Amino acid sequence: MDMTRVAVNGYGVIGKRVADAVKLQPDMELVGIADIATDWRIKTAAGRAPIYAATTEAAGDMRAAGVDVAGTLQDLLGRVDIVVDTTPKHIAAGNIERYRQAGVKFVLQGGESHKTTGHSFVAQANYDSALGRESTRVVSCNTTSIVRILGALRDAGLLLKARGVLIRRATDPWESHLGGIMNTMVPEPSIPSHQGPDAQTVLPDLDLVTIAAKGAHTQTHNHYWTLQLTREATREEVLDAFRAAPRIAFIRISDGLVALNSTIELMRDLGRPRGDMWEVALWEDLVTVNGDEVYLTYQVFNEAIVVPETIDAIRALTGLAPDAAASMAITDATFGMRKSFLETPGAAS
Amino acid sequence: MDMTRVAVNGYGVIGKRVADAVKLQPDMELVGIADIATDWRIKTAAGRAPIYAATTEAAGDMRAAGVDVAGTLQDLLGRVDIVVDTTPKHIAAGNIERYRQAGVKFVLQGGESHKTTGHSFVAQANYDSALGRESTRVVSCNTTSIVRILGALRDAGLLLKARGVLIRRATDPWESHLGGIMNTMVPEPSIPSHQGPDAQTVLPDLDLVTIAAKGAHTQTHNHYWTLQLTREATREEVLDAFRAAPRIAFIRISDGLVALNSTIELMRDLGRPRGDMWEVALWEDLVTVNGDEVYLTYQVFNEAIVVPETIDAIRALTGLAPDAAASMAITDATFGMRKSFLETPGAAS
Repeated sequence: MDMTRVAVNGYGVIGKRVADAVKLQPDMELVGIADIATDWRIKTAAGRAPIYAATTEAAGDMRAAGVDVAGTLQDLLGRVDIVVDTTPKHIAAGNIERYRQAGVKFVLQGGESHKTTGHSFVAQANYDSALGRESTRVVSCNTTSIVRILGALRDAGLLLKARGVLIRRATDPWESHLGGIMNTMVPEPSIPSHQGPDAQTVLPDLDLVTIAAKGAHTQTHNHYWTLQLTREATREEVLDAFRAAPRIAFIRISDGLVALNSTIELMRDLGRPRGDMWEVALWEDLVTVNGDEVYLTYQVFNEAIVVPETIDAIRALTGLAPDAAASMAITDATFGMRKSFLETPGAAS
Repeated sequence: MDMTRVAVNGYGVIGKRVADAVKLQPDMELVGIADIATDWRIKTAAGRAPIYAATTEAAGDMRAAGVDVAGTLQDLLGRVDIVVDTTPKHIAAGNIERYRQAGVKFVLQGGESHKTTGHSFVAQANYDSALGRESTRVVSCNTTSIVRILGALRDAGLLLKARGVLIRRATDPWESHLGGIMNTMVPEPSIPSHQGPDAQTVLPDLDLVTIAAKGAHTQTHNHYWTLQLTREATREEVLDAFRAAPRIAFIRISDGLVALNSTIELMRDLGRPRGDMWEVALWEDLVTVNGDEVYLTYQVFNEAIVVPETIDAIRALTGLAPDAAASMAITDATFGMRKSFLETPGAAS
């Protein structure tokens, strides 16, 4: 099999995870990483892949800091089929022209707007429409989780409308020293928050409204939903819809997984790289069905959930896999994705 | 006018505030405070009212600690018309028999169950049904806020059903050293949470479901609601319903009141005792009307919101005021209750 040659531009929270994930794929080769950092953040990339300077100016600084620089982003783009841009929000949009001139396909992240690529991606929802495109945008962590959860009920013909409250983490752990909110809550300054419309870029027919706020914790988001169904349903029907959908794993208060920190510790105990959780963790015992309404809450590991989606986006754009199921089967096997965290993987559905 | 003689049993977060509030009332006399504490908590009561020992055993300890003890709770009960029990959750239920034997009326707090008194109280909702009763229970801070907010829309004929997410504070500031949750979120272990049914003890016809979680902050609760109206309404109609209701004050992101901490600091700047906020602070500019749905968020100062309610409950049980409006007019004037925090009180509606 020809290996698809991949570049990662931006070695931050998402980029470093995407880089590692690309290396796990049997059909991809990580050709290089580009960044402008000169400190520990880029130095941990040494030995994982050749490092390129994202700008000519950065090349000198990086070399002066002892980083082994293989060339510039321009050089790197000449050696790959596709680039995953994981630079900070709004930087990526400015890079598009360079990618086009180099003739490489590109995957952007959720910090960019839908119109930058004209396509927004969640593997299980719309892989097909990304097949062979020049580019797509993997939506944000919050939006990805919404599409997975609401998409599962929609695919089961059960979802009429959804109203959600999203309590976001204050800031990412690695940059907590830069300041996040502390001992307070900060409602987003408008209702609906942007995540609702963002999910509609993937599933345009969803009737959903999101209200968001930042909480005073630094790890993972926590969503609370009231869902109106198309009809009265049993709890088992609702759970079955979630069981049938990929990348949603049940957790249970009855297992002692009682709060966000429980799951974070569990991921460490499972030996996951960086303690990542790629699945949406849905509290099974809190899924409550009341006539034609469902109430539920789940946890979104914001640093990791979009990483498998990004891998699938690479396959969709380059045509490496013909459909979502084929791509996700490879991705999920290489990641060790689970439907349940406490049963033996082989025994779990 | 005969002064109603009031005792406060339990000089904690609520009790100390009720004691001060009783002293502000022109028709009440604070006869004494009872507690079992021997440390700073009871020593700050010195000079505010005579201090009684809640138990005979406590009397010795309190005297040994230098507290000037005027007698026991039994003595105090012989000198009052009514006792407000603000002892810790589930202690109050055990005190009821003593109150009955002493022939004094009693007000319990929201930690006790509805059946302990058979009546649950929010002044603006059901003052009348408490008139002349032996006892009532002032519902919890969360429930009080729910009744005020949903009651306002119900009274305007606008509310069909309500689905809310309540993010509670981790612990009260004064007892933060005892441990609260930190850097996580803890969903309540069942949906619906108890606050929905609790609000129905005051307004039985409310169609509401609450989902609750604890956040990692220590001051004030924050509620997020999706409300279904009886019909499509304009934003002004909805705001008018809140303007017409007592004890709801608008705050605005456009005024820089952007998070829970903003309002907490504002209360200090307004010179309020202990920085208390007795009103429900509703973000006016986040009240969003979408056809027949309303989305909104508000802040509940959990240490203070039930204090004016408790004062009104005293009036209702003892018949000091014939109706809610008469009682609340006195209470609100003595507290300095506001409909808006930034306009001059005289100019505000």
